[in-house]
Amino acid sequence: MPQISNKAVHMPASPIRKLVPFADAAKKRGTKIYHLNIGQPDIATPDSFLKAITSNDLKVVEYSHSAGNESYRKKLCNYYKEYNINLDPNEIIITCGGSEAISIAMLTCFNPGDEIIIPEPFYANYNGFSNSADVVVKPVRSFIESGFALPAISEFEKAITPKTKGIMICNPGNPTGYLYTKSELEALRDLVKKHDLFLLSDEVYREFCYDGKDYVSVMHLSGIENNVILLDSISKRYSACGARIGALISKNKIIMAAALKFAQARLSPPSYGQIGAEAALDTPKSYFEGVKKEYVARRDFVIEALNKMKGVFCPKPSGAFYCIAKLPIDNADKFCQWLLEEFNFNSQTVMLAPATGFYSTPGAGSDEVRIAYVLKIEDLKGAMTCLEEALKVYPGKTV
Amino acid sequence: MPQISNKAVHMPASPIRKLVPFADAAKKRGTKIYHLNIGQPDIATPDSFLKAITSNDLKVVEYSHSAGNESYRKKLCNYYKEYNINLDPNEIIITCGGSEAISIAMLTCFNPGDEIIIPEPFYANYNGFSNSADVVVKPVRSFIESGFALPAISEFEKAITPKTKGIMICNPGNPTGYLYTKSELEALRDLVKKHDLFLLSDEVYREFCYDGKDYVSVMHLSGIENNVILLDSISKRYSACGARIGALISKNKIIMAAALKFAQARLSPPSYGQIGAEAALDTPKSYFEGVKKEYVARRDFVIEALNKMKGVFCPKPSGAFYCIAKLPIDNADKFCQWLLEEFNFNSQTVMLAPATGFYSTPGAGSDEVRIAYVLKIEDLKGAMTCLEEALKVYPGKTV
Repeated sequence: MPQISNKAVHMPASPIRKLVPFADAAKKRGTKIYHLNIGQPDIATPDSFLKAITSNDLKVVEYSHSAGNESYRKKLCNYYKEYNINLDPNEIIITCGGSEAISIAMLTCFNPGDEIIIPEPFYANYNGFSNSADVVVKPVRSFIESGFALPAISEFEKAITPKTKGIMICNPGNPTGYLYTKSELEALRDLVKKHDLFLLSDEVYREFCYDGKDYVSVMHLSGIENNVILLDSISKRYSACGARIGALISKNKIIMAAALKFAQARLSPPSYGQIGAEAALDTPKSYFEGVKKEYVARRDFVIEALNKMKGVFCPKPSGAFYCIAKLPIDNADKFCQWLLEEFNFNSQTVMLAPATGFYSTPGAGSDEVRIAYVLKIEDLKGAMTCLEEALKVYPGKTV
Repeated sequence: MPQISNKAVHMPASPIRKLVPFADAAKKRGTKIYHLNIGQPDIATPDSFLKAITSNDLKVVEYSHSAGNESYRKKLCNYYKEYNINLDPNEIIITCGGSEAISIAMLTCFNPGDEIIIPEPFYANYNGFSNSADVVVKPVRSFIESGFALPAISEFEKAITPKTKGIMICNPGNPTGYLYTKSELEALRDLVKKHDLFLLSDEVYREFCYDGKDYVSVMHLSGIENNVILLDSISKRYSACGARIGALISKNKIIMAAALKFAQARLSPPSYGQIGAEAALDTPKSYFEGVKKEYVARRDFVIEALNKMKGVFCPKPSGAFYCIAKLPIDNADKFCQWLLEEFNFNSQTVMLAPATGFYSTPGAGSDEVRIAYVLKIEDLKGAMTCLEEALKVYPGKTV
């Protein structure tokens, strides 16, 4: 048989996927697993979204406009205006999830072999999209000790080569939960301007900023409007991951014209997801206030519980619904597998994501795990108890 | 600002897109346009599909399995069994439309610079997917005189180079409507086997085979199971283009494992589309019989009307809902634009797709148009009258 492509051979598999068979086996043994390993919220999708779907009266499920329904894009402009982002419907292309927005952005901006600098740890699937588009990821490391703040600009400067074509950030961040400050973003703006780079920003956790801290978008940075691409998704905002509705947004007309050609080749984004997403724009503020309050309570509980455990350190993030904790263990991959394969406390255990999968630098994050605090407080209590008990008996513990 | 990628610069825009501003202007002038330019059927989506959506009770619109819901894939196996294609659910990955199936297949099989041979004329978006994946399309020409039958195998042999990695077909064909015979497919099988190539087959028009002719799938060809990838979609089958549900199918375990990694990176296919598609599998046979009868009547009407026109030749296709007609004109692109820009008959005109966009060979198809017979007979009558009258007065007519 013919050989598959090199891209296919090198396509990274998520480190969490490796754990799935062990989780399945644990479930078969009757062990209850607290899933803190994925960003699938348990929050209900807003009624406005769900009702728009169940009351839709489509008779022929036609292709939509390749850039997405115009009525949706127009209404989206009002949504962004509330975040002080002024857009025209032509500056928005609706995509099949944030994933497709990233893919199209990479195809539009980068030639094979071009380099993109991404602060690590970063969302593991950025590796997959980069591999698909033949883009080389150059990590610049952020550290748990500073809560994963933006690395010094001098570190970015060191990473820049003649092949560097762009920088990508996630704000608020997955997997760190870190929310970039205005001055961090302004420093990035100056760097982007100086080297004339693209700045791709994944801001799908915009609704999840805590403690009264300001959300600063790359769209707020003046002077680099033609360099910036905003990557967005309704998956987390409306707890509608399966709707597969995202967006690629830019003020740069050349980028948008090119991105539209990629969007036209794949015809259109999903019709039903767009119907739900458009209706969800009427979701009352109270929905988000309720969700935010819930996540703050979950975060506060988890962070406090973690930092009380012997040898554990977890900075308090200001956004998204993830945190990265440093554990007194030899190896996060081994530990996460052991939790599923050998450990249980009262027939319960916890599934975590080893942080190694979020770093590009070999060996980095080997004593760190990502925790998605997407469960009810009661379940988080059970999960933290399991983790605490596990750390007492794990054969590879270091304290 | 930084330069966009070479891929973005060279991304082909559909020739139909160029006509859209002229169509918009014609509409503004009050001209009625018969749209025979796109494959958007006017047929109603089956009730089973629509009702499954409006009666769904999702509360949290979660990610589905990256390969698609297992219940859907299991039930799909029964669907394929009726076409004598025996599958296991693990041999199916549900995609965001047939488009994503093609993209993932190309990324999985081809290295940048690898060549794929495609009989032309072919579906224009294959160029876009090839460009995105850095795959080089090598056309092998089929001709209107033989009804667009498979080119001689010797022509394929001539096109094969050390870079050739695969062959792609569409059966029944868009834009030709040609249905490959068993012996044509067996000849392709022998070629694929001899040169150990991938064989990608887009069979989304399976339900639209006419005149009692047999549908032969690449999945029916024995001895090349590890070379074959079937690309599928429910868009045409259930007139559900906007649902964005397709499938990538192969018996080759290495291909499927690699394709799944690409599918995992983009998380999951659309949830609502899958709900509709799964329910639509219960669509009664009478639905398809009705649809088929309607398309045969439309085809027969259009083909007869075309061949009655002076200087026009249109072979009678046995599948899909397209035909390609040779017209007595100087230039199909100019003619199609003229139809919208300058012509009307009783304030009506017709929008056609110039066939040039479906050929890779420069100059090929310059007196041919693709006609999608996706309108009711009454509208097709109006459209054919417009075309006949237009050919009488078109300044670039050649008879």
